[in-house]
Parts: sequence; structure tokens; C-alpha cells
Amino acid sequence: MTEHIIDPSTIEAENASRAADLHVDYDTLGERLDRRGVNIDAIKNKVAAFSVAVPSWGVGTGGTRFARFPGKGEPRDIFDKIEDCAVIAQLTQATKTVSLHIPWDKADPNRLKQAASRFNLGFDAMNSNTFSDAKGQLQSYKFGSLSAADKATRDQAIEHNLECIEIGKTIGSKALTVWIGDGSNFPGQVNFADQFGHYLDSMKSIYAALPDDWRLYTEHKMYEPAFYSTVVQDWGTNYLIARELGDKAYCLVDLGHHAPNVNIEMIVSRLAQFGKLGGFHFNDSKYGDDDLDAGSIDPYRLFLVFNELVDAETRYSDFHPAHMLDQSHNVTDPIESLMLSAADVQRAYAQALLVDREALKGAQDGNDALAATQALRLAYRTDVEPILAMARMEQGGAIDPLATYRASGYRAKVAEIRPEIAAGSSGIV
Amino acid sequence: MTEHIIDPSTIEAENASRAADLHVDYDTLGERLDRRGVNIDAIKNKVAAFSVAVPSWGVGTGGTRFARFPGKGEPRDIFDKIEDCAVIAQLTQATKTVSLHIPWDKADPNRLKQAASRFNLGFDAMNSNTFSDAKGQLQSYKFGSLSAADKATRDQAIEHNLECIEIGKTIGSKALTVWIGDGSNFPGQVNFADQFGHYLDSMKSIYAALPDDWRLYTEHKMYEPAFYSTVVQDWGTNYLIARELGDKAYCLVDLGHHAPNVNIEMIVSRLAQFGKLGGFHFNDSKYGDDDLDAGSIDPYRLFLVFNELVDAETRYSDFHPAHMLDQSHNVTDPIESLMLSAADVQRAYAQALLVDREALKGAQDGNDALAATQALRLAYRTDVEPILAMARMEQGGAIDPLATYRASGYRAKVAEIRPEIAAGSSGIV
Amino acid sequence: MTEHIIDPSTIEAENASRAADLHVDYDTLGERLDRRGVNIDAIKNKVAAFSVAVPSWGVGTGGTRFARFPGKGEPRDIFDKIEDCAVIAQLTQATKTVSLHIPWDKADPNRLKQAASRFNLGFDAMNSNTFSDAKGQLQSYKFGSLSAADKATRDQAIEHNLECIEIGKTIGSKALTVWIGDGSNFPGQVNFADQFGHYLDSMKSIYAALPDDWRLYTEHKMYEPAFYSTVVQDWGTNYLIARELGDKAYCLVDLGHHAPNVNIEMIVSRLAQFGKLGGFHFNDSKYGDDDLDAGSIDPYRLFLVFNELVDAETRYSDFHPAHMLDQSHNVTDPIESLMLSAADVQRAYAQALLVDREALKGAQDGNDALAATQALRLAYRTDVEPILAMARMEQGGAIDPLATYRASGYRAKVAEIRPEIAAGSSGIV
Amino acid sequence: MTEHIIDPSTIEAENASRAADLHVDYDTLGERLDRRGVNIDAIKNKVAAFSVAVPSWGVGTGGTRFARFPGKGEPRDIFDKIEDCAVIAQLTQATKTVSLHIPWDKADPNRLKQAASRFNLGFDAMNSNTFSDAKGQLQSYKFGSLSAADKATRDQAIEHNLECIEIGKTIGSKALTVWIGDGSNFPGQVNFADQFGHYLDSMKSIYAALPDDWRLYTEHKMYEPAFYSTVVQDWGTNYLIARELGDKAYCLVDLGHHAPNVNIEMIVSRLAQFGKLGGFHFNDSKYGDDDLDAGSIDPYRLFLVFNELVDAETRYSDFHPAHMLDQSHNVTDPIESLMLSAADVQRAYAQALLVDREALKGAQDGNDALAATQALRLAYRTDVEPILAMARMEQGGAIDPLATYRASGYRAKVAEIRPEIAAGSSGIV
Repeated sequence: MTEHIIDPSTIEAENASRAADLHVDYDTLGERLDRRGVNIDAIKNKVAAFSVAVPSWGVGTGGTRFARFPGKGEPRDIFDKIEDCAVIAQLTQATKTVSLHIPWDKADPNRLKQAASRFNLGFDAMNSNTFSDAKGQLQSYKFGSLSAADKATRDQAIEHNLECIEIGKTIGSKALTVWIGDGSNFPGQVNFADQFGHYLDSMKSIYAALPDDWRLYTEHKMYEPAFYSTVVQDWGTNYLIARELGDKAYCLVDLGHHAPNVNIEMIVSRLAQFGKLGGFHFNDSKYGDDDLDAGSIDPYRLFLVFNELVDAETRYSDFHPAHMLDQSHNVTDPIESLMLSAADVQRAYAQALLVDREALKGAQDGNDALAATQALRLAYRTDVEPILAMARMEQGGAIDPLATYRASGYRAKVAEIRPEIAAGSSGIV
Repeated sequence: MTEHIIDPSTIEAENASRAADLHVDYDTLGERLDRRGVNIDAIKNKVAAFSVAVPSWGVGTGGTRFARFPGKGEPRDIFDKIEDCAVIAQLTQATKTVSLHIPWDKADPNRLKQAASRFNLGFDAMNSNTFSDAKGQLQSYKFGSLSAADKATRDQAIEHNLECIEIGKTIGSKALTVWIGDGSNFPGQVNFADQFGHYLDSMKSIYAALPDDWRLYTEHKMYEPAFYSTVVQDWGTNYLIARELGDKAYCLVDLGHHAPNVNIEMIVSRLAQFGKLGGFHFNDSKYGDDDLDAGSIDPYRLFLVFNELVDAETRYSDFHPAHMLDQSHNVTDPIESLMLSAADVQRAYAQALLVDREALKGAQDGNDALAATQALRLAYRTDVEPILAMARMEQGGAIDPLATYRASGYRAKVAEIRPEIAAGSSGIV
Repeated sequence: MTEHIIDPSTIEAENASRAADLHVDYDTLGERLDRRGVNIDAIKNKVAAFSVAVPSWGVGTGGTRFARFPGKGEPRDIFDKIEDCAVIAQLTQATKTVSLHIPWDKADPNRLKQAASRFNLGFDAMNSNTFSDAKGQLQSYKFGSLSAADKATRDQAIEHNLECIEIGKTIGSKALTVWIGDGSNFPGQVNFADQFGHYLDSMKSIYAALPDDWRLYTEHKMYEPAFYSTVVQDWGTNYLIARELGDKAYCLVDLGHHAPNVNIEMIVSRLAQFGKLGGFHFNDSKYGDDDLDAGSIDPYRLFLVFNELVDAETRYSDFHPAHMLDQSHNVTDPIESLMLSAADVQRAYAQALLVDREALKGAQDGNDALAATQALRLAYRTDVEPILAMARMEQGGAIDPLATYRASGYRAKVAEIRPEIAAGSSGIV
Repeated sequence: MTEHIIDPSTIEAENASRAADLHVDYDTLGERLDRRGVNIDAIKNKVAAFSVAVPSWGVGTGGTRFARFPGKGEPRDIFDKIEDCAVIAQLTQATKTVSLHIPWDKADPNRLKQAASRFNLGFDAMNSNTFSDAKGQLQSYKFGSLSAADKATRDQAIEHNLECIEIGKTIGSKALTVWIGDGSNFPGQVNFADQFGHYLDSMKSIYAALPDDWRLYTEHKMYEPAFYSTVVQDWGTNYLIARELGDKAYCLVDLGHHAPNVNIEMIVSRLAQFGKLGGFHFNDSKYGDDDLDAGSIDPYRLFLVFNELVDAETRYSDFHPAHMLDQSHNVTDPIESLMLSAADVQRAYAQALLVDREALKGAQDGNDALAATQALRLAYRTDVEPILAMARMEQGGAIDPLATYRASGYRAKVAEIRPEIAAGSSGIV
């Protein structure tokens, strides 16, 4: 039986004050959708079945190279983090898995499994880390990891990824995500061809150890922490990697990892068309890899990404990309941000499901650009909040997760147990 | 025997006043390079053997959607254009071929051959045009050409490319360059997957007609004339195309066709490493596809591109990318800009040849980022103008092409023959 | 009495089939807003009073430097254009004025006034043009206009602006908008300080001729048609201009004229705070000055701009910025695009009016970032289409302007009268 | 008498092996410049008189939010930092001052003065820090400092800046530099007008305490650490600040703090023209605020900035902008990077001094864009290294600072005294 961290009576009380309005709104929306030939319950059921993973590191307060300002009740370890994830899952009913980051989340695998299953949580992809040095590590990643010029360093980085696979096997993960910061800060610092050759060789060693029912996700990023060049700098290089490695290798798309102005939804389409779309790290950005809350800056872009995903579902068999939030919460309570971000991802999905694809196709084939874009806008304009809220409520979640979370007093409670972290500056400028 | 448009005595007179200084500068530079273990004559010989093609459209004054301000003596047709190209070739000795654009340059192929061979000019890649409607054309390219939803439109665009190949065969071209403006201006206007499928199918038909000793170059561009999405938007899509088509298909890189901040030299390296670097459209840009003179905005970037090319020459067999200028001359005499741009491309090549590759490799392998980047900077800092000037002079060109061109009075002479074009606004805003 | 181009019975018939649903949707939305303490009729009245100007050039098909693909029934002159504008005004009831562009729209002022008043249209700001050469013009603007190095050229450009003011006085305009393309294509081509000095001097001459009840709007733009530098490149320079000129000088903001990633709503706030926000050219963009339909690419950004405007209304007295659409319609019927764009501007305004400003202020003062941003999102998520449609219907416009326009057959009718324009390429690449 | 950290005999020995070649290169360059009418010694003397400040934080290894990889012999405190700065000054003779950052560099002012004067170093601008929380600080800067909604927080931030002025007075600084990270991460989190109002009020309090012979520098930055909006986001806002505060307030330009593609040299010109150019933080960038070594990514841009400065010197009286390096050295020995960066700043200055300004002006006035840009290119192409090296040698510095530094064994020596810092990950992602 699933344990509940937030007392279900709190949720019930909060829902009680909102249920009547929700029913009215759901019904009137249902009627409007019915006019468009859409069955609201069918949409709601798809939304209810949708889940996005929460990364373990997301529940702690993030920071920048300038400073980090911790909040109250910061999780002390992976077990605290799992509890925070359980709160998110309970209130939103939209985040059924947790994604671990090694070495930070290393612990007895059986204890990990047990901790998660208490709350009926599963484990999503394993994340390795070779962008910083762990204590006691023999070789430094200062000049690269999987693509380093130095063989011993590459071997250490390979070994770390193999360990992540091992841990993942024990706890029931089915994927490894590899993102590295390798690159260079000066023209000439590395030879691009040699460095990429090293990277491919290292990845082949990791791929060879991947269980048959696993997937390997590689993630591209334009820059940061390297500021002149990055090994896996864009989807073009990412595609080359996935193709070189084999059928279990796929490309991961983080919405904040592209050059300014790039059309990301088109990249999604290309990768899907060529069978290499692995999944997403959802977040939003205005400038660079800002890791802001999904949908908080450009919600229409998030919708356009989901428009591609819904389209792809109808085109390609065995199409099931992974979904994960990957955000840095610097000025909000991470639990609050993650709850609303999960909802915003669901919102984009629900809106994409509303697109009249027959009308859209007709307009496209007839070169009726305006009618085509209006087919998208009509779906996007629809306020689907009643659908999301109904899906949550029917599964035991909160109609209003934010209000309910605040009403529960959870943060204050854990702040009593978890020690305050001194505000500190990284002093890195 | 090669005809000369500029009287050789003009060149001789201009060179005479500069030759003594050139010899001093060449010798003192030679001595400095000797200290670094570099033989200046070897560099000069490589520079002398280097050529970059001039596009026929480049010798006319360009413009923007806002206006075009023609200069005096604008070429009236392809034969005038060939004469202008001959002037550039004569003075710079760096531009041995002309690249035609169909339908604008359509003419009796034998007359074309004859016109070029008078000046010992060859023909570079053929360029098709399906980004605008030619007079009398049955189908419009308003909504796309090779990727259009409408089959008749696609067929017409294929047919046009086949015609370009036919013309090229007659005049001795060995390549076809395909750049299209197809894309969309609104989210939803096109289905990305369908559109790209159409494009690939069309290109396969064209590829099938390509002679065995030809190459097919496809060119990517982020945006413009389409402002929401473009079919061949980046090197990732361009690579997919070249791989789908086959061994004669290669990717063309225009330096102004990328997203802001993108590391272009790295794209050059990736394409070379995977055997798909076809060549370049050289120019420079600050904002978008500005088509400014090569090396006029960021000369170090041009050097870094050539640094990759020189590196690639030592790595890959059968590596011989095509070089062409592709610029829009809005405020200068196009002949002057093209002469100096050809020299700036040679300059970057000469500087890249000066890089001490052994020292560079040593620094890279030793993680000595500063020494590595200094190896590039030392080469780039070298003022190689005496090498370029000597290569020109020894082949009959001008030590100072700009001064010599101006002294020749060429522009005033053709302005007497070629009628003035009324300044006109396109009225497109 | 106002003439109607579209037969009112067509509108009535189209509205008849939609009115019942509209009433239901309006009422249910009203009820939801009521729960939030918002009176839907008050919002509707504000929306009904809102108007955005249509630029005369907007009703013709646009183009790029690569090509222009005219549609059927292109307006032949300013009188055709006024008729097209009247259709937009009739169906949307949101565009009460037309903005003229001289010299293209030059005609007998009395005839202009008469033509507009037939349809109860007024005239918005006058737009001068010195970015292209008009026939017969003595000095060319190839190297600049108001900021040119050559005094005769500057004087001619000043004179042209004075003429625009004169025309405007006759027809009842109350503002002059000055946008110039002056800049440079090469480092060193101009001296920045000298060029800006010339510009300021020229503008002072124009300002001196401005009637007391007029406003002078200057518009900044990052680049294009100049590709290295632009005289009025950003809001910083624009602000300096408005301050140097005097109290009647204001800054105009075109949403597509900024560097990538720039926070435009913040610029709006700064200009408003320092009393220099003149108004807007509405459109949307993904890459540069794409001139796409307002709200078609990033509708949330448009909302955030209006959020600033609604906030500013409560802060500053005498705050009444000008609103104009400035778009290029390359693949759609311009009338259709302008109708939907006017609605999308109204939509952003309506959504901004829904923001609970008290709750927002409370969240801001309490550093509750999440609650603050949710206050915006709640307003933005609201589908205000019933409010817009009701405002249109009640004023005699169409519930669904696009469907009604198509049903009216207007385009086909004018295509019979207005001759087809041959598809032509500008040949400028 | 000035103490020397590097044994002068080491410098002499290193110089001895290079002096003969240097004299040859200096003389042949002198001859070439003489042909252009330039006296090489005059240039050398200006270069010798030029100095750029070193920031105290620059001599420590930098990092990113992902990780920091310390090097050997990291300075432990401000006194170690001053010694590292003394090494840079001794070898380059180009960095005569150090810029302190409070609170990190807080120490007994008399000890500070003594430590610096031992090496004949002065103190440049004081830098306050309110972008991170110092230990024991009462109010947190999590939600802003000088612009925070909370008055107590603003007061604390003001107080800190007043303290910086006090320290600066004691040690002989003549300027305060204020850069804050205040902004927001979500639309709506702050009210732009209120926030800027708070900022201006706070700055007025600081300005009021500024001694008469001091300058106040404010620094704009587009983003980071705030990712939706930043209070002082661009030069437009920065100019408003300097104007609001008064005659002692100036704008500081950091080359990496602008939007993509922005023309920075033009901003330099505008600020100089309106009397508000305070100075520079030199570095280079490819993507964002990358803080890479000055001139390492786009050396021509650095030259174009100095081209404006040399031009401004001839135009404006009392023009003496401040120069400081502001870089983050993540993969190099910071001393090495700072030495070469100082030289690259001098290089740009020397090249700018070579521009034939009369010829340039003539080309500009004659609309000869090509000749104008060639006047810049000719100066930029000149390899001025012999001038820089001669200026260094004549003042007791090293012909080749990098080789001499490495030969001195300084880093190994301090690594014996200064304890190794454990590689650590910030764990902030």
C-alpha cells in the first residue's frame, strides 16, 4: 500500500472547496470541445496516463557560479529527496518516477528501491557525472572526461558510467543518460577530430555494457561549462553519436541547450523521423541554459514541441520518448516549481491533443498557411486547466497543488528536521 | 593565348612602384619565418596554387528587400559578368573559375565556353534557382519548390535542376549546388516530416541524373527567405541529406547561414571527419546572412576555418573542398570587393599554413591550453601580405590589386558602354 | 453615413450561425471571471475601445530580397489600399485608422481624406521613406539619408520629412514616424560619432517644423538594411534622440527590431518610466526583423508587453502610446493576416486586463516569485476569444472575421478589377 | 625601491637569447611603418605608458556552476594575490594597479597599502559585492540587493558600498565599481519600474558619499545570475543611471555582457560622445559572459573597440577611461592568462594607433567604404609584437613573458607554500 506524506484529509479538504467549480468548468469546457468533435474524457484519460520524471537534484535549491541561496528544509540526502519527490507525485499525480544522479545519490540499492516503493515511485534513467571531480577520484576531469586526451582519465570516466549501469540494474532503471561538459575554452586547445574520436571510442565501451532492454541517451548542449567548443554541441553531432553506437542509442533534447533562435520543434521532428528521438529534459530559457521552469518563458514553444510528439505518435511505431524535468530552482521552493512545471508539461500535451489534425493536414496540403496556424492556435488557446485538475483529483491528487501544498505545511515541517544550510558564495566569478 | 582586359603595362607600372618594398618585406618576413622553421617560398607556392571561384551574380550590385542602389557600369548579361570576372582573375590571380546561376546566366553553352576560355577561366559549380519564379514558369514557388506539397511544383523544380546539369555538362562544370528557400512562415504551415520527405524524394531524382564524376552540393541555411522554419536549416539536416543521397553528395557551408554564436569551424571539422564536407561559400556576417566581404567582420574566424582545412588535408585522403565567394556588394564596387575578398581568403589559408602543427599537437596532448592557442595566434598574427603579393606578382597579377584596378579606369570605361540603371526601390518592406 | 464594402447581410448571416454559441461561451466565461472578481463587460468595453492602426503597405503582398510572390487582386494604389483597410475595419472593428507611407501613398490630400472618411477611417502617423531612392530624386540614399556624410543628401532627406508633415496636416494626422536604414556595411565605413551628429542635426530641423499637437516617433532597429552598424540601433540610442529633440519626441518600439534574447517588455517599462514610450509596431519574429503576424510565434511575449502597458496606465498620466501593425505578408492574403493580427493584439490586451494586480503586487513585495508569475499565467491562460468576438459583434463586426471574409468573396471580386502582377524575382541575392 | 619577485637575472637571461632578433624585427617594422609615415618609437612610448588593472580575483582559478578545478599554488588571501599580481606587473610592465573585491579582500588597509607599494603597485577601482551572501550577513540577497523589495536589504547593500568607499579612501583608490546581479527569474516576479526606482534611490545614497575626486562606475549585463530580467541589463539603462546620478557617474563596459551580435564598438562611441564612458572590463566571449582571455576569440573586435578609443581621444577633452581585465581562468594558470591578455589589450591599442586617421576620414567623407575599411585592416594586419616586446624590455620586463615565467619556476615555488585545494564540485546544476 502506498504511503502518503501529505495527509489525504488535507487534500480532500482543499479539493472540497474547489470541486463544485471544477465540475462546472469541466462540463462547460466539455461542451465547447464537443462542438469541435473532441471528447473531453478521452483527453483527460490521456493526460492522466502521462508522467514526467523528477530528477533527484531538482528538489534542492540550485544556484549559479556567483552564488547559491539555500532555502529552508533542504534535503540532506537521496532519501530526503525521494520524500520530496513523493510529495510532488502525490499532489500532481503526474510524476511517477525519480531520476538519480551518481555519485551524489549513491546508496545501498536495496534501500533505494525500498524508499521509492513506499511511495509507489519508480526509477527513471540513471545519470552519470563526469563534469566535476568527486572526492578521492584519481584523475581530474579538468581537461575532459570521456573525450580527454589522457587515456587514464577516459578509462576512469568509462568505469564510472559502467557503475551507473550496475546500480541502475539493481533498482530497476532502464536507461543511462550521458551528458558531459567536455569541450575547450580556447581555439586550438583541442583538436576537434581527435577529441570526438576519443568520445566515440569511450561511448562504444559504455554501450557494449548496456543491457538489451536499456536505452542509452546522449544529450547535446551548445556551451557551458566549456566556452569555446563543446564535444556534443548540437543535434547534428548527437545524431552522429546515436547512429555510430547502435539501435539502443538515442538523442536527448534539453530545451535550453540550443543556439539563440533555433527552431527546436523542427529538431524534434527530424530526430523522430530518423528514429533517434530519445526524449526530453524539460525546462525553459530566455538566454542560455537558464534551467527555468518549463513553460514559464515561452509556453507556445512547449506546445509546439508536443504538437510534434502527438504527430509523431501517429506516424512511427514504437515511439515512446522519455520525459524528465531538468530545472534549477534558485528563487522558489523547488517542490512548488516542480509541481507546476509537471502541470505545464501536461498542459502542453493536452493542448496538442486538441489539434484538429485532419483540418491541419488539409490546410497544409492546400497551402492555406493561415488556416493551418489557426488550427494550432485554436488548440493552444484552449484553457485545459479543468482537464488537468480533473485528472489529478480523480487519481487522489490536488485540484490546486500549490495551494494544497502550502496548506499542508510540509516545508515548515521538514525545516524542523533538516538543518539550515549557511548561505554561501561560491566565490567563483 | 589568354586575353587581358586590363592592359598589362598598367599592371607593370603599378607594380614597378611597389616591387622594391615588396622584395624587402618578403625577405625580412622570410627570415622571421625561417627562425620558426618555415620556408616562405613553400607557403607562397601553395598560396599561388589556391583558387576561389567567383559567382556570376557577385559582380552586380546587390541589395536588400528595402532597396537596391546600382552602381555605374553594371553588367548587362553573363558575358559582361565574365569580363568583370576576368578582371578580378587577372589582377588577383586567385580566382580561376566562375560559377553560373541558372536561369539568369542561361545562354548558348558554346558561347559561354568561348567567352570564358578567352580569359582562361573555367566554370565552377552550377547553381540552380527555385527560390523565385522565372517568367513564364507554370508553377509558382511561393509555397516551396523541391519540398512543395504540390507534386507538379516539385516536378518542375526537379526538371530545372536536371537542366542545370545538362548545361553544366556542356561547359565543363563538375558540380551542382542546390540551395532552396523552402520552409514556412507560420507554425503549422507545413508538416516538417512530410516536407522533408518530399525534399529527399526530389533530391534523389536529381542525384540519379548526376554524372559519375560530378559532385552534388547541398547548402543549409537557418532562415530567410522563410522566417519560421527552413527545410535544410542546419548542418545536421544537411548531413542527413548527403548521407541519404550517396557518395557524390556533400554538404556546402556558407559562413553566414548559422545561428548566432555557433562554432562554425567545429562543424567544418565534423563534416570533414565524416567524409561529407563539400566546400564553402565564403563571406562574412555580423547578424544574419549579411553576405559581407569575407574576413571583413571576423577575420580570426576565417582563419580558424582554414586551420581546420589544413588540418584535414593531413588526415583525410581525397580531401578537396570547393571554394567560392558568395557575397552581396551593396555599397562597394563589386569587382573591388571580390578582389580583396579573394585575397582575404588566401590570407587565412596562408596563415593557417604557418601553424606549427607539431607544437600544437604537443600542447593539445599535454593539456597546455595556453600554448595551444598561442600556436594559432602566432600564425594568425603574422602579416602574410608580402607572400600574397609576391604570389600575385609572379603570376602576372598586381601587387596592389585595388590601386591597380583604380588606376586602370576599368569601371569608367564599361560605364560608357553599359547603360545606367535607374535607382529603384523594391517597395517590399 | 459609413459605407460598407462587405454587405452587412453577409456578416449577419455568418454571425447568426455563431451567435448562440458565443452567448453561451461569453456567459460561462463571465461566470468564471466573476469568481476572480472580474466583470467581463468592463473588459469587453475596454477591448471595444481599443484600436490598432493598419499601415497602407501592409495590405499588399510583401517579399524578401530573394523574391516576391504577389497574390490575386493586389491593390494598385492608395485608394485600393484604403478599401482593403476598410474591409479589415468593418469585420474586426479594431482598426480605426490607416497609416500612410510617402512617397508611395502620395495623392491629392482632399481625395485621400474623402476616401478614408467614406469608411469612417482616420489617418494615423505619417511615415517618411529615405531608405530607398524615389524616381527623379537628385541625391541617392545609397550611403545614408538623414545621417549621410553629404550635406545635400541630408537636406533632401529633411525636405522629404517636412513634406510628409505638410501632407499629414492636411489629412488630419498627428504624428510623424521616422525610420531610416542608415548605417554601414564595413568597420570604418562611417565614423559613428560624426554620423550620429549629422542625424541629430537633421532631426532637429524636422522637429522644428512639427506642429505643437503632433508627436515625433523615432524607431530603432538593430540591423538591416545595414549589416555592420545602424545609426539608431537600439532603444539606448533612440532614447538619446528623443531626449535631445524635446517633449514631442518619443521612441517607437518594433517587436522585431532587437538583438536575440533581448527582454523587450523591460525596454517598454524603461521607456514608459522615463516618459519616452511613443508606441509600437506590432508583429512577431523568430530570427530577425521577420515581420510575421503579431502573436504568431511567441504570443506570451506579446502578452507581457501589454502587461507593461496596463501597468503603466495606472502609473503615468497622459500615457497613450500609439499602436500600429507592421507586418510583411508573404504567404497569406494580407487582409486575412491583418484581421487576425489585430485580434491577437486585442487578445493580449484583454488578457493583460485580467491580471489581478493587487495579488501580483503582494507576491512581488513578498518575494513570492511563483505566485507572482502564476498571477500572470492565470490571466494569460484565459481564453478571451468570447470577449473579442462579442466586442466585434456588438459593433457590427464579424464573430469570425476570417470565415466571414472568405464567405464574402471579396478577394475574388477585386481580382476581377485589379490586374494580375507578374511573378518576379528581385534577382538580389 | 621596488621589490622583485622574479629574479631579474632570470629575465635578463631569457631576454638575452631573444634581444638580437627583437632588434632586427623592431627595425624592419620601423622601416615599414616609416613608409606609412608612422614613427615606431612614438607608438612604443604610448604602449609603454599604457596600463590595464588586474582584478584580485583574477589570479585564482575560476569555475562554473558545474565545477571548479583549482590549480596548484592557488593564492590563499589578498596578500598572496598581490604577489601574483606583482609577478604579472614585473614581467609585462603593463599592469600597474590591482583592483580589490570586498569582502573577499578585506584586510588592514595599511597592510594592504604596504603590500602593494613593496612592488610599486597601486590600487584601481574598489569592487563591492552584493551578488552573494557573506557569512554573518543579516539580510540575504537571494531576492536582490540594491534594488530589493525589502528596505532593510537595500540599506544593508548601501552600507556595504559605503564601506568599500571608506576602505578605498585609505588605500588610495579613486573609484567604486558597482555591479549587481539583481533581476528576476520569472515574468512578474518583480515590477520593472519599482525595482529600478529602488535601484536608483540606493545608488543616489552611495553617490552622495563619493569623494569629489572619485568616479562611480556602474556596469550593465544582459543576464546571469538572473535569467529572465536584470536591473542594469544594457547600456541604455546604464546611461540612464549615470545621467540620473551626476557628473561623477560613468558607465562601465564589459565586453561579454551584451546580447548576441550586438555592435559593442558603437556603444563605446555613443557613451564617449555623451560623456559617460567610464571604462572597460576586458575579456572575450563566444556565447555569453564567458570571461575568456581578452582577444582570444575575436581579436578584431578588441581592435575595433580601441579604434574608437583612439578616435575619442582626439575628440573629447578629459577622456581617460579605466581599463581592467575581468576574466575567469578555468583551464590555464591565471598568471599566464593575465600576462598574455594584458599584452593583447596593448596589442589592440598599438594597432589602433597605427590607423591613418586622415586617410580614414577622407574615405569616410567620400563614401569610399572599401578604402575606409582597408585603412583599419592595414593597421590591424600589422604584427606589432616587436613594439610590445621592446616596450616591455626597455622597462625591465620580459621580451617573452610566458617563456620567462615558466623558466622562473614561480608556480612550483608557491605551490610548495600554498596548500593544495581539494577538487570540489559545486553540485549546482
